[in-house]
Amino acid sequence: MRLAMLALLLGASLAASADEGMWTFDNFPAATVEAKYGANIDSAWLDRARRSTIRLSNCTASFVSPEGLILTNHHCVEACLANLSTRDMSLVQTGFVSRGRSDEPRCATQVADVLQSMENVTGKVTQAITGLDGPAANDARKEALTRLEQACEKNTGLKCESVTLYQGGQYFLYRYKRYDDVRLVLAPEADIAAFGGDPDNFQFPRWSLDFSMLRAYEKGKPAKTPDYFPIRFAGPEAGEPMFVSGHPGATERLDTRAELEFQRDLVLPNWLLRYAELRGRYIQFGKGSEAAARIVEEPLNSLENGIKVQRKLLDALRGDSLLAAKSEAEQALRAKMAGDTAFGDPWADITKATTIERSLYLPYLFLEGAGGFNSASFRYARTLVRAAAERGKPNTERLREYTDTALPRLAQRTLATVPVYPELENLTLSFSLERMREWLGPDHPVVRLLLAKDSPDRLAARLIADTKLADPATRRQLWDGGAAAIAASGDPMIRLALAIDEPSRAVRKRYEDEVEAPITTASEKIAAARFKVYGTNVYPDATFTLRLNYGTVAGWNEDGRDIPPFTQLATAFGRATGSEPFRIPDSWLRVRDSLDMQTPFCISTTNDIVGGNSGSPLIDAQGRIVGLLFDGNIHSISGRYGFDVAQNRAIAVHPAIIREALQKVYHADAVLRELGVR
Amino acid sequence: MRLAMLALLLGASLAASADEGMWTFDNFPAATVEAKYGANIDSAWLDRARRSTIRLSNCTASFVSPEGLILTNHHCVEACLANLSTRDMSLVQTGFVSRGRSDEPRCATQVADVLQSMENVTGKVTQAITGLDGPAANDARKEALTRLEQACEKNTGLKCESVTLYQGGQYFLYRYKRYDDVRLVLAPEADIAAFGGDPDNFQFPRWSLDFSMLRAYEKGKPAKTPDYFPIRFAGPEAGEPMFVSGHPGATERLDTRAELEFQRDLVLPNWLLRYAELRGRYIQFGKGSEAAARIVEEPLNSLENGIKVQRKLLDALRGDSLLAAKSEAEQALRAKMAGDTAFGDPWADITKATTIERSLYLPYLFLEGAGGFNSASFRYARTLVRAAAERGKPNTERLREYTDTALPRLAQRTLATVPVYPELENLTLSFSLERMREWLGPDHPVVRLLLAKDSPDRLAARLIADTKLADPATRRQLWDGGAAAIAASGDPMIRLALAIDEPSRAVRKRYEDEVEAPITTASEKIAAARFKVYGTNVYPDATFTLRLNYGTVAGWNEDGRDIPPFTQLATAFGRATGSEPFRIPDSWLRVRDSLDMQTPFCISTTNDIVGGNSGSPLIDAQGRIVGLLFDGNIHSISGRYGFDVAQNRAIAVHPAIIREALQKVYHADAVLRELGVR
Repeated sequence: MRLAMLALLLGASLAASADEGMWTFDNFPAATVEAKYGANIDSAWLDRARRSTIRLSNCTASFVSPEGLILTNHHCVEACLANLSTRDMSLVQTGFVSRGRSDEPRCATQVADVLQSMENVTGKVTQAITGLDGPAANDARKEALTRLEQACEKNTGLKCESVTLYQGGQYFLYRYKRYDDVRLVLAPEADIAAFGGDPDNFQFPRWSLDFSMLRAYEKGKPAKTPDYFPIRFAGPEAGEPMFVSGHPGATERLDTRAELEFQRDLVLPNWLLRYAELRGRYIQFGKGSEAAARIVEEPLNSLENGIKVQRKLLDALRGDSLLAAKSEAEQALRAKMAGDTAFGDPWADITKATTIERSLYLPYLFLEGAGGFNSASFRYARTLVRAAAERGKPNTERLREYTDTALPRLAQRTLATVPVYPELENLTLSFSLERMREWLGPDHPVVRLLLAKDSPDRLAARLIADTKLADPATRRQLWDGGAAAIAASGDPMIRLALAIDEPSRAVRKRYEDEVEAPITTASEKIAAARFKVYGTNVYPDATFTLRLNYGTVAGWNEDGRDIPPFTQLATAFGRATGSEPFRIPDSWLRVRDSLDMQTPFCISTTNDIVGGNSGSPLIDAQGRIVGLLFDGNIHSISGRYGFDVAQNRAIAVHPAIIREALQKVYHADAVLRELGVR
Repeated sequence: MRLAMLALLLGASLAASADEGMWTFDNFPAATVEAKYGANIDSAWLDRARRSTIRLSNCTASFVSPEGLILTNHHCVEACLANLSTRDMSLVQTGFVSRGRSDEPRCATQVADVLQSMENVTGKVTQAITGLDGPAANDARKEALTRLEQACEKNTGLKCESVTLYQGGQYFLYRYKRYDDVRLVLAPEADIAAFGGDPDNFQFPRWSLDFSMLRAYEKGKPAKTPDYFPIRFAGPEAGEPMFVSGHPGATERLDTRAELEFQRDLVLPNWLLRYAELRGRYIQFGKGSEAAARIVEEPLNSLENGIKVQRKLLDALRGDSLLAAKSEAEQALRAKMAGDTAFGDPWADITKATTIERSLYLPYLFLEGAGGFNSASFRYARTLVRAAAERGKPNTERLREYTDTALPRLAQRTLATVPVYPELENLTLSFSLERMREWLGPDHPVVRLLLAKDSPDRLAARLIADTKLADPATRRQLWDGGAAAIAASGDPMIRLALAIDEPSRAVRKRYEDEVEAPITTASEKIAAARFKVYGTNVYPDATFTLRLNYGTVAGWNEDGRDIPPFTQLATAFGRATGSEPFRIPDSWLRVRDSLDMQTPFCISTTNDIVGGNSGSPLIDAQGRIVGLLFDGNIHSISGRYGFDVAQNRAIAVHPAIIREALQKVYHADAVLRELGVR
């Protein structure tokens, strides 16, 4: 780990030899790849890969047919499956196989974005803040980004989003074609899709059939998608060059030591404590009845994944070596810049800001972050209250998540018909109110306001019983009615969101002025220094925007033991206990004798991936899909802070097991034809 | 914090001026106290305080009448109250006021120990291990302690326990008079005893009436206890010298940096994650019914207290200053010993041992520590299986917790009639099996043995449904029947305990030989060096043995705000919300008009206390009780690692509020007479 971190921190000049890097499509190191792997990645290859790769709201996906068919992970559509379920029936448990195109139900809150072009707007942003400093620069920067997005959308008709790369070293506009009608085609049962469950999550060897299929629609018809990846069902060979095109969510490899210490000391421990408890509440709740188990399954799965990630992140920060390497790298860059008097000490500025951040962290988390109000109804109320207030302002003066660019997606999410279960709402809201009281203390003004004469349980029960926000028609009326409708509303959740809006905005304003503003200014300085000293042959931290990386099919050595890069179906049957999460579904047991037990199941590769890459196509040098990324091994989690070339591995579903499942288990003949099988 | 830590680590020569120290009764710094506070603590004072102070199984207490009446905290008898409760009735909730001596129910697993004398046996232990090293020395040391205890009990008829002081710098035999018949006299309702609950725990100002009364019996009659503390109900003045006689449980102020890092990196984070989840399960379980809420109340309260403690301990270790001070102190002592070639590098020896400990930690925790088998039935099974095996061996060859000295107490605990609730057993056992699978992994041999074809839920449900160990008669039969009865038993919990006994003992043996043995040897070396360099005017770490400390009534300054050292009853009524944990019981509301609202409620003092001191008498220079210790402020938690003279405060119940409660709320006239009131 230490070597890889140093290589990166000291300018990434060694990164290429380590298959490290989440490269933007405008700066892909094609020459390095050619030299190392003999693969020719030209601009046609890149363009086709870009137009075939999809950003979902939470994951990556890709087109696999010219008629909008999308391949992604099961866990990427789990929320959609839950939204299409009821107390009495869970598509998460049963899976879903469409009987034809008229039988593809819509994922009400999903979208599919395809990147069309990127424009470097660094100069325009720099110009907008020239002569400004601190909070004024911070505000001006946001206004400039909003203006640029607005003009772009007007001119192109595409979705335009500004992207901050290299911690402020570059600003870009990314332009997307957006499909907001995304429908479900096929999903296996969770028992096989997430075989091994939480115990096997982030483990390899592995036997999880974590795939699903969606379809993009336009004007009520399957979208025409001439750019797509064909699938090479035979899969890759060990040692073959592999590419992953996708949207890695977030890394912090370029963060300063002070920022990482803030994560280590406050963010991660607090998160883990609160969510370990919520995990316990979910599990116990689910034991109450079969309906309760169905209701809680998807949020519990998501939570358990988060706990494993945060736990390993904290482990990584707790070790001395990562932070020591970070200090060395900072010293080295500081030394190189010693002659530049205008440079100042941006690391000291960030350290000072994180000191303030420590004092703001808990109120920010519980109020502005709504950590004290964990419920779908409150999230609706917060959005409705703020959207009404912000829409009354000029576009550039709004909170950034309520600009004209953001509103259509916000409306889709807020107005979609999805189930809201009061019993689960009660659980999460009473839990979060109680923890807010624990962490802010019973004497905090907001806590006294809400709980001076009430208990968290009683308050939550009353709010959930009386709010009508679970009904989409009520939300539609408040969304359309705007500020007047909000002011007139007697809904208790709306009144709660109004009551805490001022203290929430106040802590956010302090955070933006006293933490975000100085950190952004200092980060831009450090980024400029890094470009100056180390050049531009580097990649930026992940920002849930399109990246390409390269690697190869390979296992690794764990405590002296070689882990081979492929697994086979037979071992899944051997590992089954008959009980969740090691249960093989009946649909598979019924056809067991017809299955080829030697079918490859999962693949380990050296590609540099992170959460958000889930659902990414694993592509060969000819641009064919040879696997479906769904996870990393346990060492990959600390990849958030630095890439460990020896042990960090990506994990993909092998296409052969997908074909085996489609043919013999799910009899998805139409899908197979669409994929060109037989 | 840093100054106090350094003072301590560098030899405690400054400790006296800081009111720091948990002094053994044979080494109390009476001259320092006389000089600072003008209080004359002579040997008669010390002898009376020692004979009036009680060690309960989990707390401190004291005699307050010549007829065995005992004053301690409510939370110290909460387990007894729960044991005397049922699904339908909770003494924790209702409280208890005895109607007379025939109405004092026995706390089935409680004992009251009074220290009679102490003997320094360091020479005898040193002699026993002369010429031995490593595991052989470790075994010989334990055998010597067992032999010494055995001989002492035979010669004196008292309970004899060996005590390791100064991390092996001294070994003592402590001789106790034991009362194993301890009965309940009085306890307030939890709503007032723990007013403020978890949110206010470890906070000050405070309004918790955390007191209760027990009585020691001998041969079925109230014990004669001529040594006791009278109560000065008017309470102390600010600035008056205060003494706390009690049994602080455990501090780690003399531990090495490597040992603290092991706590920081493994023990505390793992504990917090697992128990935060269990907290969530308990809370959700308690919402199921009023009976469930009653059943879970006591374990939940205990757990929440633990979570707050461990959380603040981790915070303390995460800061850089404590560990930096530790390193400096180690360097300083190492430098002083540089000329002594036989000294070696005991810190390096300990670091090496903790490296091994890291690899053994999880299997030790889940198997030998039974962290994978959290249920009363399993604990019974483990004890019965091991007691049968160990009793068949010579006394000195047994595991130390099964020697002849330990057996009577073990039998009392194992055979007592206490409620065992299968629904709670199911919860804790399935939880711990599942977490064992998470942390050891599904492929660990013991996990495969138990869960290869089963789920944690199903296995737990079957074990709890089929075991008969909840029945004391079954346990009695297996205890009396010994090895033959165990071998013949088909009870599934006994079979489970047998099945995992060998792997559990194996990891324990490795731990003892490879971790405990080298650490003990190295710690003894460091202790000897510390005595040599810094002299003997120091106090040892807490070991749940009798200590005396001194201080004064004082508040502190919190973020520029002065916290006064007394609170009054009126504020409790102002703070009440009507809902738990801020609910004032009906018994108080009914007599509200008769109460003196200016009655002092709680007291803050500078005494150096830690968990285990709960229930300690706060004593004035004349040996009268002027308060009942029940907590420390939030800064006191890190007192485990070092005393912060500026902010570390002990918290006591004021005797005036106890009198007010006994007179006006509980009408405990007989108790008041016994206490000499009116």
